[in-house]
Amino acid sequence: MTARPLEGPIVVTGGAGGIGSVLVERLLADGHEVRVLDNLSTGRREALPEGQGRLRFDSVDLAAAEPPADAFAGAREVWHLAANADVRRGVREPRADLENGTLATFHVLEAARRAGVRRLLFSSSSVVYGRARQLPTPESYGPLEPESLYGAGKLAAEGLVAAYAHTYGFTTYIFRFANIVDGRMPHGIVYDFFEKLARDPARLEVLGDGRQSKSYLRTEACVEGMLTVARKVAEPVNLYNLGAEDRTSVREIAEKVVAAHGGRARIDYTGGDRGWVGDVPQQWLAIDRARALGWSPGRSSTAAIDATIAELARRRGVGPPRS
Amino acid sequence: MTARPLEGPIVVTGGAGGIGSVLVERLLADGHEVRVLDNLSTGRREALPEGQGRLRFDSVDLAAAEPPADAFAGAREVWHLAANADVRRGVREPRADLENGTLATFHVLEAARRAGVRRLLFSSSSVVYGRARQLPTPESYGPLEPESLYGAGKLAAEGLVAAYAHTYGFTTYIFRFANIVDGRMPHGIVYDFFEKLARDPARLEVLGDGRQSKSYLRTEACVEGMLTVARKVAEPVNLYNLGAEDRTSVREIAEKVVAAHGGRARIDYTGGDRGWVGDVPQQWLAIDRARALGWSPGRSSTAAIDATIAELARRRGVGPPRS
Repeated sequence: MTARPLEGPIVVTGGAGGIGSVLVERLLADGHEVRVLDNLSTGRREALPEGQGRLRFDSVDLAAAEPPADAFAGAREVWHLAANADVRRGVREPRADLENGTLATFHVLEAARRAGVRRLLFSSSSVVYGRARQLPTPESYGPLEPESLYGAGKLAAEGLVAAYAHTYGFTTYIFRFANIVDGRMPHGIVYDFFEKLARDPARLEVLGDGRQSKSYLRTEACVEGMLTVARKVAEPVNLYNLGAEDRTSVREIAEKVVAAHGGRARIDYTGGDRGWVGDVPQQWLAIDRARALGWSPGRSSTAAIDATIAELARRRGVGPPRS
Repeated sequence: MTARPLEGPIVVTGGAGGIGSVLVERLLADGHEVRVLDNLSTGRREALPEGQGRLRFDSVDLAAAEPPADAFAGAREVWHLAANADVRRGVREPRADLENGTLATFHVLEAARRAGVRRLLFSSSSVVYGRARQLPTPESYGPLEPESLYGAGKLAAEGLVAAYAHTYGFTTYIFRFANIVDGRMPHGIVYDFFEKLARDPARLEVLGDGRQSKSYLRTEACVEGMLTVARKVAEPVNLYNLGAEDRTSVREIAEKVVAAHGGRARIDYTGGDRGWVGDVPQQWLAIDRARALGWSPGRSSTAAIDATIAELARRRGVGPPRS
């Protein structure tokens, strides 16, 4: 494959995280020079591929201040994926998403503006929709009433990105993700269930009544979706949902993980329609807009979950009892 | 008139501002005890009425830190109206709305949460809609792509307010205002035109091509609208547009101000469809929801502008040439 012509390095914030590291790998494979900024709170240095001289890593706390000017100098674009990755954290730490979401995004935008970088891609989330009354939910849905501080941080960041597009001439991309899953990510529903079963193989506690139902997308498909949109459109603000065609329930996932783990655990539901304060129990994104650009999620939510369970079971060396 | 039973003082941030001071006057008249927090950047101490012992004023910079705990202790509700009042300021000072909009709102919400105050009313703005493709624009319109940093700050604050409702059990009100006008406000289009004519009575420079068209609401009607909604509904998030039935163009306003000023000035348009970077040239809010609760804007946009021009002409002692 011939690499596209390069026009300066690509900055990826949160590049050591679950989605960022897959994106970075892909960008390097496409022949780009990549600069990763990550505070390594969730991301791991080891998740980054060998860069063969084309990967630079800086440990930077974007919440505290603007990143150093040289990190953005000459860059062709910025992928801003850095964020607090734990939606539940905001309940006990209301500043977490303000700082790692809103302020970090402001600092990244300001650094880009000062450095003359005018292309920015931002990973938002389905949680900005809150408890949407329309499912599947299109990008034009309103009003946006996030349930969590995490969602408020994403919405604030979206507003900043749009304002920088219209005020300072940025070309921007806002991606609202469904739940992104794969076997390497050290968080998410499948990972959490395996963790719980590792601690107590006889019992799996599930938050909520298990009827929460959401769509799930594999990390590779998510990255492919962003790259497709970024290649095809260039409005000041390009807003796209990225999710799957279908969705699957927490109960189904719990039963599958228990089966993959040996099938001996009892499942206990804590009850209530949401898993935790700030949870959005029903999430299902309309993905017609991204599909119209030629992208496809590749697998159903069910298949994405199945693949992730298989990966985690393999990694952990667990499985159904052999007969 | 019998005052409603009191259940603790009412906190009004930005209470010395153009809208806040009218609200405070009304709350005092209704028999409430009021605590005003204002940094007096736009607000004026003199704008506050005599409180007869029921009004407390604190000069507080909400952008810098949470307000002192005693300001919120025992309060029944918080009206959060404080903000940067100059939409254009964000272009040259990107931090202005982040600090006076987003951070100030976060600090107010946190202070309310810590003090156990669970009712909050917030003054948002039509600018969160950006250049809406639907006019009149309903509350359910999306996607929200603010044009200005001011709009981004309002959207961020809306998200925080909604998240506090769903995460911490607040009952919240979000009001998206049209342009609010009256003769006492030291800013706004009518005020700006009179200021320009005071400097040069022969020429009025108008930003843009004059075809920008927006709806205007008198401050008293705006305050009445908020009080009506606050009395009638109590969902976790109550989102209401407050505007007029019609709209009026910048050109019409310019011609009326020139006539009121003596009719001698030449009007020069700077051209372009927006008045400034971040301006939303077409603004017209659907107000069916607030109307359904029994509220009415009282006057048309045209009548609101006419009344404001008459007030400013009287204050400044200008008028058409006597024949």
